[in-house]
Amino acid sequence: MLHWLKHYRRPLLVGDLSAGLVVAMMMIPQATAYALVAGLPPVAGLYASILPPIAYALFGSSMTQSVGPMAIIALMTSTAIAPLAPAGSALAGVLAAQLALISGAALLLCGLLRMGFLANFFSRPVMSGFTVGSALVIAFNQLHTLLGAEPPHLHLPSAVLGVGALIVLVLSRLYLAGLLKRCGLKPAAADVAAKLMPMMVVLAGIALMATTSLGEQGVRTAGAIPGGLPHLNLATSAPHWKPLLQPGLLIGFIIFLTSMSSAQSLALKRNEKLVSNHELVGLGAANVASALSGGFPVTGGLSRSAVNYAAGAHTPLSSIVTAALLAAALIAPTGWLALLPLPVLAATIIVAVLGLLELDIVRTAWQYDRGDVLAWAATCLGVLALGVEAGVVVGVALSMGTLIWRASRPHIAVLGRIAGTEHFRNVERYPVETRPETLVLRIDANLFFGNMEAVAGRIECELATHASARHLVLVMSPVSSIDTTALYELAELNQRLKRRGIGLHLAEVKGPVLDRLRGTTLLRELNGQLFLSTAIACDHLQTVKDVA
Amino acid sequence: MLHWLKHYRRPLLVGDLSAGLVVAMMMIPQATAYALVAGLPPVAGLYASILPPIAYALFGSSMTQSVGPMAIIALMTSTAIAPLAPAGSALAGVLAAQLALISGAALLLCGLLRMGFLANFFSRPVMSGFTVGSALVIAFNQLHTLLGAEPPHLHLPSAVLGVGALIVLVLSRLYLAGLLKRCGLKPAAADVAAKLMPMMVVLAGIALMATTSLGEQGVRTAGAIPGGLPHLNLATSAPHWKPLLQPGLLIGFIIFLTSMSSAQSLALKRNEKLVSNHELVGLGAANVASALSGGFPVTGGLSRSAVNYAAGAHTPLSSIVTAALLAAALIAPTGWLALLPLPVLAATIIVAVLGLLELDIVRTAWQYDRGDVLAWAATCLGVLALGVEAGVVVGVALSMGTLIWRASRPHIAVLGRIAGTEHFRNVERYPVETRPETLVLRIDANLFFGNMEAVAGRIECELATHASARHLVLVMSPVSSIDTTALYELAELNQRLKRRGIGLHLAEVKGPVLDRLRGTTLLRELNGQLFLSTAIACDHLQTVKDVA
Repeated sequence: MLHWLKHYRRPLLVGDLSAGLVVAMMMIPQATAYALVAGLPPVAGLYASILPPIAYALFGSSMTQSVGPMAIIALMTSTAIAPLAPAGSALAGVLAAQLALISGAALLLCGLLRMGFLANFFSRPVMSGFTVGSALVIAFNQLHTLLGAEPPHLHLPSAVLGVGALIVLVLSRLYLAGLLKRCGLKPAAADVAAKLMPMMVVLAGIALMATTSLGEQGVRTAGAIPGGLPHLNLATSAPHWKPLLQPGLLIGFIIFLTSMSSAQSLALKRNEKLVSNHELVGLGAANVASALSGGFPVTGGLSRSAVNYAAGAHTPLSSIVTAALLAAALIAPTGWLALLPLPVLAATIIVAVLGLLELDIVRTAWQYDRGDVLAWAATCLGVLALGVEAGVVVGVALSMGTLIWRASRPHIAVLGRIAGTEHFRNVERYPVETRPETLVLRIDANLFFGNMEAVAGRIECELATHASARHLVLVMSPVSSIDTTALYELAELNQRLKRRGIGLHLAEVKGPVLDRLRGTTLLRELNGQLFLSTAIACDHLQTVKDVA
Repeated sequence: MLHWLKHYRRPLLVGDLSAGLVVAMMMIPQATAYALVAGLPPVAGLYASILPPIAYALFGSSMTQSVGPMAIIALMTSTAIAPLAPAGSALAGVLAAQLALISGAALLLCGLLRMGFLANFFSRPVMSGFTVGSALVIAFNQLHTLLGAEPPHLHLPSAVLGVGALIVLVLSRLYLAGLLKRCGLKPAAADVAAKLMPMMVVLAGIALMATTSLGEQGVRTAGAIPGGLPHLNLATSAPHWKPLLQPGLLIGFIIFLTSMSSAQSLALKRNEKLVSNHELVGLGAANVASALSGGFPVTGGLSRSAVNYAAGAHTPLSSIVTAALLAAALIAPTGWLALLPLPVLAATIIVAVLGLLELDIVRTAWQYDRGDVLAWAATCLGVLALGVEAGVVVGVALSMGTLIWRASRPHIAVLGRIAGTEHFRNVERYPVETRPETLVLRIDANLFFGNMEAVAGRIECELATHASARHLVLVMSPVSSIDTTALYELAELNQRLKRRGIGLHLAEVKGPVLDRLRGTTLLRELNGQLFLSTAIACDHLQTVKDVA
């Protein structure tokens, strides 16, 4: 904690200050926009961008992570509170803070219990499917704001403004950085400058609203934003804890996943080490801080953190600078923000979430593993058809389902001896010698409840095709763990083979596995022997046979 | 299907007939008792014991499985329908049949989609914890029937009758088989005879009710049982499909698990092969048949199937005989069944579920793997504290949690060369030679989303402690699969090492793994080489070093 402050060196200061400024400018439209996505007043987004990054700077593990509102988390927040309170109401704000408190407390608890392994419940294709599905839902939800539409009519001035902003943003996203580079800007500076376009477009929108009659023509704006810093209090009074519990836990899970994936991609660039348990604590503290200050659930966002890094951030000081600047913006007159036209804000949201439509993993998986494409598609469709919360559950179920399904098809090789050597290899891939009375199988998987039934089935199958085998040698070199369920099934296999007069021998059992097997019924009643190597086993069993 | 009938031989007939008779006698008290546990009229239990075993005989995979009502499934049925209909009402019966239809349809669908791997979602300790928790709930729920209690008073005649029956049943369970063996009965016959004690006690109870004034003193009885066979109809009319869907699916899952574990223990005794997909179809057909004939969800029960086997059953014909005898009992006068005293029935239920309190696995796991004891305890407490449905969810979550937690601690060994050989072994266990510029790691796990982060972390850790390493050789012999997530993380590791000027080499990659890796970005951009063996890799990399 704060070890970066102890070793802080003056040369880092310029980078941290400029990154803090850039992220603050990026944050103003983003935070207000995501507050609207969450069904909250725009100021809640700014509140959620002040204390949470400071809390993360104190407790988090990533040096350049930028913590604050994020599109998918905002969507999940809106999904959770929409049935309980009308969008934009005071109650919605209280519920959003409670949601942040639940998520934050759960993240803190998981961090203190060192449950960072929870991040491994999602495979990447599933996470990608979840992200793409959520991005489509968010973009679709913004369409009516973009077009100023009250069905069945659209509001022409709003639509022109919104679609105009959308076109500018899409074009600048595609071409601006390249253009600036050709004009002589350094690549990093050009990328950062291009990322400030949403703020520029928003400022242009405000200027238009201030100087033209668009407002009188019915273009909707963000409305008055109360000045001053948020009041600190824990919103524990409202009567909605119970229905918020499950969404809060799901949001906490997704906060952890998105933040880890963002932090990991930064750590990769900076050769940093990331400690998932610290990350849990940092995110937990950030969300509790958000709850304290009238915000909503927050997380580390990839695109914002990447800008932070590219703009020169070296330490969490840049996040503290961002927070200070946003606080200053709230203390200064906030009247200008009230003019922010909603169609323009909708355009920035749509462009931001279109950036989440990363389909590279689908292309890769299509060539590499179609099962993963199926998991991707099912999660994405799950979000679209059943909603974002059910999408998380579908995602976990699919990740686990894929895992158990793969485990249920373990690789087991029949081995033979390479003539004249002590080496044993797969009979299907090498010209090897086998003996009819001894069946040698190598089990290429750790044995656990998910695959042991399949392993036992396969062993029976091989014994059926090698009917003359009197000895079964299991080569255990690839097995580095055996769980209780597998221990039971091995003991049952042993009993079964004993009754049929077939010896069960274990070869090349790893040290740690053997240490744990000692004293178990399996070893005590083993209908055969332990051998150090497969060659020794086969030599010995041949002698036994010859003697008999 | 029915292949057992094609090869039926006369000598099997005596065994099948006698087993059918024994199981029918066991079934009468059991089926009526479990109907009461399910909150249904006693006759529903008999209906659930006629068509379902016949359907299973036609489609199931186990030769000696006895399908019918079972305690835990009855408890789950009662949990599902209790909020929707009062116990014993006509609506409760309709809902129970619908529940059987949902479970049956889901099981059939899973069978047709060959999803037998679903059985692997529970580890044995978790299944045991679930069973023990459910058994305790059932036993506890029966206490007030056993004592004839309307709180705060107990009904003395009922309590004397119930506790008396309980004592007789417990004593006979503990000692009767041994006593009969010492009297000269064959062991199998003695065991079977002991299992008929519940029927004897029930008959004694009926005799007592018929000959004494216990009924007038307020001892409650099963009440009139309508004679005749069940009417066939699919109860699709009631308005409760939606709340029954989730319980129906959970019940289907537990039906599959209990039946598989029973069938497996029988298959073990008979050297039979069990096909989990056939089992799904058989159970699905049995439950649809139960729904058709006014029953409730059914499964293959271990204790009843064991009696069936011990009493001489060779083929599903014994189940058909049981069904025919039960049908005959319903056609014959059923007045005698009406006198069945409920306290005695409660005693039979309590003794039956106490038989489910099998704690051997806890003892084994306590010595072998404390994590499994934790999973056992958490599932058991989950059932007791949150109920039987939440218990299933807790169980799956714990099984998967254990799995991911274990996966997140993969075994990785630093290897060195045994002097003068081509063998490489763990530096911690063997006296081996290493070279400072080459770090050799063997990854003892398949690479997938659940462990790749931990693998990458461990690799970074080893590179940090071996700071002079210019080459990293990953020995891939234990890796038999790499999923899309792991492929991405390996490619990222490769990029990271490339930037740091460290070569990434892969040795002993298995054939099937290599086949899939060809054409991926990882191999195309690999900052190093593929080697057939670790020895070749190290010899070659040493030359590279010497040249440089």
